[in-house]
Amino acid sequence: MSSRSRRTASLLSAALALILLPIASAAAAPPRIEITETAAFDASSVAAFAGDYADVYAYLHQHRDADLAQLQRWVRQPSISAQNQGIAQMAELLRKDLQTLGFRDTALVPTSGHPGVYGYYDAGAAHTLVVYMMYDVQPIEPTGWKVDAFAGTLVDDPALGKVLMARGATNQKGPQRAFLNALDAIIKVRGKPPVNLIVLAEGEEELGSPHYPEVVAKYEAQLRKADGVFFPMNTQDRDGQASMFLGVKGILYMELEAKGNAKSGGPQRAEVHGSLAAKLDSPSWRLVQALATLTTPDGEIAVPGYRDAIRAPNVEEQRLFNGIVRGRESEQAKQLESLGAARWKNGRGFRDAAAAELFDTTLNIDGLVAGYTGEGVKTILPHRAVAKVDSRLVPDQTPDQALALIRKQLDAKGFDDIEIRKLSGYPPAQTSVDAPLTRAALGVYRKYGQTPPVAPRIGGSAPYYVFTQTLGLPMIAGGLGHGSGAHAPNEYMVVEPLKGSKVAGLEEGERFYVDLLYSLADALKQPGK
Amino acid sequence: MSSRSRRTASLLSAALALILLPIASAAAAPPRIEITETAAFDASSVAAFAGDYADVYAYLHQHRDADLAQLQRWVRQPSISAQNQGIAQMAELLRKDLQTLGFRDTALVPTSGHPGVYGYYDAGAAHTLVVYMMYDVQPIEPTGWKVDAFAGTLVDDPALGKVLMARGATNQKGPQRAFLNALDAIIKVRGKPPVNLIVLAEGEEELGSPHYPEVVAKYEAQLRKADGVFFPMNTQDRDGQASMFLGVKGILYMELEAKGNAKSGGPQRAEVHGSLAAKLDSPSWRLVQALATLTTPDGEIAVPGYRDAIRAPNVEEQRLFNGIVRGRESEQAKQLESLGAARWKNGRGFRDAAAAELFDTTLNIDGLVAGYTGEGVKTILPHRAVAKVDSRLVPDQTPDQALALIRKQLDAKGFDDIEIRKLSGYPPAQTSVDAPLTRAALGVYRKYGQTPPVAPRIGGSAPYYVFTQTLGLPMIAGGLGHGSGAHAPNEYMVVEPLKGSKVAGLEEGERFYVDLLYSLADALKQPGK
Repeated sequence: MSSRSRRTASLLSAALALILLPIASAAAAPPRIEITETAAFDASSVAAFAGDYADVYAYLHQHRDADLAQLQRWVRQPSISAQNQGIAQMAELLRKDLQTLGFRDTALVPTSGHPGVYGYYDAGAAHTLVVYMMYDVQPIEPTGWKVDAFAGTLVDDPALGKVLMARGATNQKGPQRAFLNALDAIIKVRGKPPVNLIVLAEGEEELGSPHYPEVVAKYEAQLRKADGVFFPMNTQDRDGQASMFLGVKGILYMELEAKGNAKSGGPQRAEVHGSLAAKLDSPSWRLVQALATLTTPDGEIAVPGYRDAIRAPNVEEQRLFNGIVRGRESEQAKQLESLGAARWKNGRGFRDAAAAELFDTTLNIDGLVAGYTGEGVKTILPHRAVAKVDSRLVPDQTPDQALALIRKQLDAKGFDDIEIRKLSGYPPAQTSVDAPLTRAALGVYRKYGQTPPVAPRIGGSAPYYVFTQTLGLPMIAGGLGHGSGAHAPNEYMVVEPLKGSKVAGLEEGERFYVDLLYSLADALKQPGK
Repeated sequence: MSSRSRRTASLLSAALALILLPIASAAAAPPRIEITETAAFDASSVAAFAGDYADVYAYLHQHRDADLAQLQRWVRQPSISAQNQGIAQMAELLRKDLQTLGFRDTALVPTSGHPGVYGYYDAGAAHTLVVYMMYDVQPIEPTGWKVDAFAGTLVDDPALGKVLMARGATNQKGPQRAFLNALDAIIKVRGKPPVNLIVLAEGEEELGSPHYPEVVAKYEAQLRKADGVFFPMNTQDRDGQASMFLGVKGILYMELEAKGNAKSGGPQRAEVHGSLAAKLDSPSWRLVQALATLTTPDGEIAVPGYRDAIRAPNVEEQRLFNGIVRGRESEQAKQLESLGAARWKNGRGFRDAAAAELFDTTLNIDGLVAGYTGEGVKTILPHRAVAKVDSRLVPDQTPDQALALIRKQLDAKGFDDIEIRKLSGYPPAQTSVDAPLTRAALGVYRKYGQTPPVAPRIGGSAPYYVFTQTLGLPMIAGGLGHGSGAHAPNEYMVVEPLKGSKVAGLEEGERFYVDLLYSLADALKQPGK
């Protein structure tokens, strides 16, 4: 659930066009998604932010080498939440950095899982901005890395310029530390930021944020007095086009397991010799047949009623969709190439693919494992088989209702012996394009010559519901910069673009964060935020 | 394809009874297997072997500690063929041992895979016995081992006595080295064995013996002049009951792979973010749906025509079946318990299970793997998914015909993009109960107070076709001793049984091999061998 990948996933399809999905053909197509609104949102209608902070920009320029070193220091500290590698060290590193920056109150926040990190900067201001951060990263792929994923290596990319290539470079350590560099410059030059800040970080975002609500709960009273939430993020594609999104999908992440048991037979203690398949049941076949009842032969969701809770896109969502897909048909080939795919799902048009990604749910196999998976031949009848499955949720789906429908389908097909373990689940989240916070961010993009497409949501998930739903706060994510490869080998963030590139380097990205912080501070003073 | 497990697999069901499978219910049952013969083979009709070799037995008794140390030395040398661990060392260890025993010609036999081992002992006799051996072992299970699998540890089992607990203890190093200990005693006491010996070993039995034919081919001319083939094996169950089997199933071992491609879509280069399931096809769902077309929802083979080539059991096979299943119904509970299973496949009666194991084919998932299989949550859409699948073959199935039927079914269901890689394949093999070699072995069992049930074949596979089919030689496997846990943690062989146990210890097992060698030598002189 990398934010960067969320953005990539979204923009690739956001950059696609059109209004209507064709009539669904049999079970093999998603439901008709009605887009009746014809107007399209256009960010150029927003005035450019007028603020100018030359003295702070100058400080950033003088300290650009030290600021890059800060990003390297962060990515050199492993923090793989799925494998609990370096988590405690990274949490303390972040807490200490906040303290060093001048956050008076800082704390590690114990949870049932990895700790959260809290920091409060009292600027004596009337308003308070919450900054969401994640300090964990994805596991390392066993093959494909050109560099040590935790060495903080600078690589010269012939097409992009100098990039920082490391796990976490863009998801999410790079942009987060760049934001702190900008904040540091403001404090050093101007004495304090224009708004009080609460940094509330988690170390389990890549796990689906199972315990972030505990972190929020501990500071709920203080958070309720805050005025909005911000998440630093690289939003430029490799051509320099920045973008915004206002919401995220929810998620349900499960393990489905078949094992030998009294009802469905099969070995219960351990694997047995493969020849025993002549007279013993196989948990592996059981899992395969159970999974097969969840999709059609061509991989479309076949769980009865699974889409019933999905509401049609509202007028704002339709306008935003129109705004991001219109006139982008030509980019399909590039988008497919970047994904290494030859077509969209079951040959859909790319407009349909774009609409599906924004407005439809998913059922995805993240992993499958049973028995012998090594090289060559081993003949066994495994006693257990497990599938990791996730589903992305759109309004008004909920994790529990989605889980219940999957359970019901398995039971109805006679697979009530298949165990479902819920590893993570939370609902979607969204903020309005008319929120002062959103418009303040758009103004800063306009100042930097950007007219960002604004997506109502993205295909990926994040636990923003704790802010938008639990606390009722508006939340936006943004920043100027480009990175890629989240959840993949050779993750990178551009730090020094080639001459003439529209991609912002680290220093320009930090200037953007300076402006954004002042712009958001202004917005927080407005009513209806 | 552990010989020991083959025996276990076989005897557990061989100890079951009855004649007719019930009428198949829908697709969910195997075909009707007609057993019309009512007579039953009874080994008590064979006269006990009269030979007595007290001087050799005495030598074995004097050297029992040294002989046990030989077994430990063998199991302490890892030789995992699937992972190429210790293979070269074990091959040379075996060759050197043969040389030390007095085999004049010995050689490592290079193949396209792991080397074979050849040894010729010229006893100046008129007849020659081929001894088949396998020097490789199964991989080690990551969990469940009570001892270092390669330490050659002696463990006191309260129910069995002193056992050698190690990978290969019973499959197949223990019985093979015990046989060589017996041969060593004969040579030391009597100067030479009663028959010329050709040891022809392979290091890929656990891989399905893909290159053993190359080893046989190299010595084919000499092998054609031989008179029969023997394979040393522990054949006693934990109660001391010995058994024989006269044949093995063949096997087809495949990898089925789904990956992103132009026809079925999906990411082709690498895994992508899981949220992209909204618009990209999934090779994992593709594999699941393809596999689901090969069986019914309850795991029975659903490949059209897959059983058409299976011939009905002949009269000898029916007599043998009657002989091994009659009056054994009472052992079902014990058999199921030993397998850790609550029932036979889809609730079959245990007589049907026994018949299925001897006379039916299988389709088994040995392994499944796709995407992220570690702890916790990782949300990816994997670009490839693989299943390891094996099928046990009975007369007159062939690997190529079975593979063609599976290919045809996948193609017919629209899964022609699923790649099938054949990793191993060979036909079944069988020797007659009336062969002099068989009767000679039965005579020795009789001398040791055993009346072994004789199975026409077992559920497992071995490459005996190279002897029975390619060379036209009779082949038997046998020995006195008990071990278990082949292809599982804590594999063991009993070396010193508890007082009163009917299980033979190492020394008695070696005496058995002495008698057997003389008995087989006599048989080879008879016509019609």
